[in-house]
Amino acid sequence: MDFDTIAAISTPMGEGAIAIVRLSGDEAIAIANKVFQSPNHKTLMEQPTHTIHYGHLIEPTTDEVVEEVMLSLMKAPKTFTREDVVEINCHGGLTSVNRVLQLVLKNGARLAEPGEFTKRAFLNGRIDLSQAEAVMDLIRAKTDRAMNVALNQMDGKLSRLIQNLRQALLETLAQVEVNIDYPEYDDVEEMTIPVLLEKCGWVKDEIEKLLQTSSQGKILREGLSTVIIGRPNVGKSSLLNSLVQENKAIVTDIAGTTRDIIEEYVNVRGVPLRLVDTAGIRETEDIVERIGVERSRQVLKEADLILFVLNGAEPLTNEDRLLFETIQNMNYIVVINKTDLPQQLNKQTVEELALGQRIVATSLLEEQGVIDLEEAIASLFFEGQVEAGDMTYVSNARHIALLHQAKATIEDALFAANSGVPVDMIQIDVTRTWEILGEIIGDTVEESLINQLFSQFCLGK
Amino acid sequence: MDFDTIAAISTPMGEGAIAIVRLSGDEAIAIANKVFQSPNHKTLMEQPTHTIHYGHLIEPTTDEVVEEVMLSLMKAPKTFTREDVVEINCHGGLTSVNRVLQLVLKNGARLAEPGEFTKRAFLNGRIDLSQAEAVMDLIRAKTDRAMNVALNQMDGKLSRLIQNLRQALLETLAQVEVNIDYPEYDDVEEMTIPVLLEKCGWVKDEIEKLLQTSSQGKILREGLSTVIIGRPNVGKSSLLNSLVQENKAIVTDIAGTTRDIIEEYVNVRGVPLRLVDTAGIRETEDIVERIGVERSRQVLKEADLILFVLNGAEPLTNEDRLLFETIQNMNYIVVINKTDLPQQLNKQTVEELALGQRIVATSLLEEQGVIDLEEAIASLFFEGQVEAGDMTYVSNARHIALLHQAKATIEDALFAANSGVPVDMIQIDVTRTWEILGEIIGDTVEESLINQLFSQFCLGK
Repeated sequence: MDFDTIAAISTPMGEGAIAIVRLSGDEAIAIANKVFQSPNHKTLMEQPTHTIHYGHLIEPTTDEVVEEVMLSLMKAPKTFTREDVVEINCHGGLTSVNRVLQLVLKNGARLAEPGEFTKRAFLNGRIDLSQAEAVMDLIRAKTDRAMNVALNQMDGKLSRLIQNLRQALLETLAQVEVNIDYPEYDDVEEMTIPVLLEKCGWVKDEIEKLLQTSSQGKILREGLSTVIIGRPNVGKSSLLNSLVQENKAIVTDIAGTTRDIIEEYVNVRGVPLRLVDTAGIRETEDIVERIGVERSRQVLKEADLILFVLNGAEPLTNEDRLLFETIQNMNYIVVINKTDLPQQLNKQTVEELALGQRIVATSLLEEQGVIDLEEAIASLFFEGQVEAGDMTYVSNARHIALLHQAKATIEDALFAANSGVPVDMIQIDVTRTWEILGEIIGDTVEESLINQLFSQFCLGK
Repeated sequence: MDFDTIAAISTPMGEGAIAIVRLSGDEAIAIANKVFQSPNHKTLMEQPTHTIHYGHLIEPTTDEVVEEVMLSLMKAPKTFTREDVVEINCHGGLTSVNRVLQLVLKNGARLAEPGEFTKRAFLNGRIDLSQAEAVMDLIRAKTDRAMNVALNQMDGKLSRLIQNLRQALLETLAQVEVNIDYPEYDDVEEMTIPVLLEKCGWVKDEIEKLLQTSSQGKILREGLSTVIIGRPNVGKSSLLNSLVQENKAIVTDIAGTTRDIIEEYVNVRGVPLRLVDTAGIRETEDIVERIGVERSRQVLKEADLILFVLNGAEPLTNEDRLLFETIQNMNYIVVINKTDLPQQLNKQTVEELALGQRIVATSLLEEQGVIDLEEAIASLFFEGQVEAGDMTYVSNARHIALLHQAKATIEDALFAANSGVPVDMIQIDVTRTWEILGEIIGDTVEESLINQLFSQFCLGK
C-alpha cells in the first residue's frame, strides 16, 4: 500500500539518556537525509539497510545545529512497518526530542496517530490484528507471565490456532458446496451431515478449550483486581505493605504524561494483583457504616479476589460475621492475622463461615505467613491448571467476546445438523462462525473497528 | 583503559513504543551474543560495526523467548564510550525492559551507575569534563536556547576556549622558566614581566568576558525563577494561566519515577521561567499577613524575577505600597492589569514607586498585553546583549565558581607583577590559574569530584 511518511516520538516522555524519533514511509530516508549531516557527508539513500550513522541534525534553511544523533536506517520490506524506517536516536530530554520531531515534521513528515506504526504493519500484511493487539499488551504487561502470553500472541500462536479452525470450517463448507452443486447423488444429506458434525464438533471443542484459558488470560492481561477488607486494626494496612514490599516489581501506570490515573500493582508469583481502593484500606473507619455504602458493595462485587483479614487475638465479632455475609459467593481468602498474640478466635467457626474458601494464618508484625498467602493466591489462580509456558491464552476482551459468539453459532450449526435442518441452512451458521473467527485476526473486520482499536495504542508505536 | 561491561536502561521509564537497554565494555558483544538469536543464526562478533540485527532474546539455560528485539551493534572505538556498545531496542513496557536488563545482568554485565556511560566517554578520552557535563544539561534543557548552549558546550566550544587560555598560561610559564634557568641575562625581570603582564592580562579579559555570560547562561540552564505577587483578585492567577497557556512548551520535571518534585516551567521566547510557589499564587489570602511570613520573604529574595500585579481599575492601596517597599532593590516588572475597566490607578505614582523598573499594562480578561509582558521579560534577560547563536555561555555553577577563582588568582599574578614581586612568586599564581581552569575541563581534577559529578547524572547515560 502507499502511505505518506509519518513520524513520532517512540520512547516514553521524560528525562532519559536516549530518546527515539521514528519515521516510516516512502519519504522517510529522504526526509532524514535533508536534515542529517555526517562528518564525511554521506548520502543516506546510498547507505545499506540496517546500518547506524553518527552525525548532526541541521536546520536546512539556517544550517543551525539542532542535535547530535545516531541514526538507524532500515529499508523496506524488512522493517516493523514493511516501509522504509529511520530511527533518530537523540538525547533524551524533552526539549531535544521535541525539537527533533518538529524538524522532521517541518521537512515533510506528518505526525503519526497513536498506534499508526503498528497499524501500518497490519495494513501492509506483516502482522494480523491479534498480533497487533499483542504488541500493546506486551508494552502494558505487568508481570513476566503476562508478557509471555503477549509474546506468544505476537508470535502468531493464537493466529495460527484461529486460522486452523477457519481452515477446517472452510473445508467443510467447500465439501457441502460440492455435494449441493452436484446432487447426482441422492444421499447429499447423508454424506454431508456426518462431515459437518465431525468438523464442527472439533471446532467447538477447540473454541471451548481456548475459552477455558480466557479468565486466566484476562487476569494476566488486566490484573487480578483485589480488595482487602476487615475491621479497623486487624492489619489491613500491614498486609498491603507486606504485599507491596515483598514483591518489589510494583508497576504504576502512567498514561501519557498525565499523572492522574495511577493504580497499584503487586506481582505475586507472576499474578498481577491490582490493588483496588487502597486509599480506603488505609483509613480506619466504622466498617459497618462503610459496608452500608453502595459504592463499597460495588467495589467488592467487581473484585476478582477479596482478602478478608481477621484478628486472631480477638473473638469473632458481629462485624466480622456481617463481612462474611457480605462476601458470600464471592472469591475470597481469609487471613487470620496476629498469630504472634494469644489466639482467641474460634477457628472452627471461621472454617464454617468460610464455606470451603482458603484460610491462611499470618503474623504480619513478625513477617510470618505472607508466603503462605502468596501461595494461596497463586494456587487459586492456577487451580487445576497445568502451567505450560507454551500455552495459548486468550486474554483480550474483544477476542473472548468473539469466541463466545463463535461458540454460539457453531453450536447452532451442530444443533441444526442434528435436527435434520436442510444443509444450506446449516451452511449459514458455519459461514457466520468462520467470519466471527476472522474478526479476531482482522481478516473480516470493519475499518472503523480497526481505527478504534489502534487509537487506543500509545503514541509512537 | 580496561573496564568491566556495564548495562542499564537508557530510555525514560514508562510506557512507550520502544525502550533501550545499553551495554558497554569488552564483553558487550559476547554477552549480547549469548542471549541473542537471529532467524539466520548470526554470530554477533562476526558482524560489521554500526549494523542493526533483528531477532529474539533467549534465556540460554531454558531456551525460553524473553523478547523480540532490534539490536544495534557498535564496535570500539567509534562509539559513545569508545568501548564496544550494544543497544538492545525492545518493547517499551516496564516488564519488558526490566526483563531484558535482568537477562544481560545474569549473563555477565554489571548494572551501570548513574552517568557511568558518560564517565567512560570521559575516562576513555572521548570528551572532557565540561563536555560530559553538557550532556546532562542537554537532557535537562528547558528551552531551545538552553539546548543550544548545551550543544555548543558539548561540541567542545567552552573546552577549546579554556584550552586556549591554559595554553597561553603554559607558554608564559615556559618562557619565565627559560629566563629563570638561564640567568646569563641580567634583565630576567625586565624581559619576563612585560610578557607576563600582556599574556595574563589577556587571560583575565577572556575570563571576564566568559563570566559576563554566566548569569544568562545560568538562567538558561536552570530557569529564571519567577514569583507572581499582588493583592487578592488583581489577576495573579489569570496571569499565571495566560503565561502557561500561551507558551505551550510547559516542561514538568519528573525525577526518576517519584512524582513528588514537580516544577512548572514556562518557555517565554526561549527564556525558561521557573514559576515558584504557584500554589501560593492560586490562593487568595491577606497579602500583608503573607508578606510578614519569613518564608514568603525568602521566596521573594531568592527569585530572579518578580511579576508584581496591580489592579488598574482601583486606586493604589496601602497593601500595594507595602509590596513596592518589600521588593525594592529586587528585579521586578509591574503589571497593571484590568485595562478593560475604567482606570483609577495613578500611573505617575506607580512610575515613581517603580524606580525605573519596567511597567506593562494588560487586560488578561481580554488577552491584551501578554505579548508586551513577554517582550519585557525577554528584553530584561537579553538586555544589552547581542544575541549570537554561536556565543559561548558559561552556564554551570561549578564552571562559574572556578572562573571566579581563576579570575582572582590571575589578578593576584597581575598585581604581583606590577608590584615588583620576584618572578618565581608570580609563577605560583599563574600555575594555580592554569590548574583551576584545568578543573573545568577535568584535566586537573580529583577522582572524588569526578565520581560526585557523574553520580548526579541519570541512569543509563
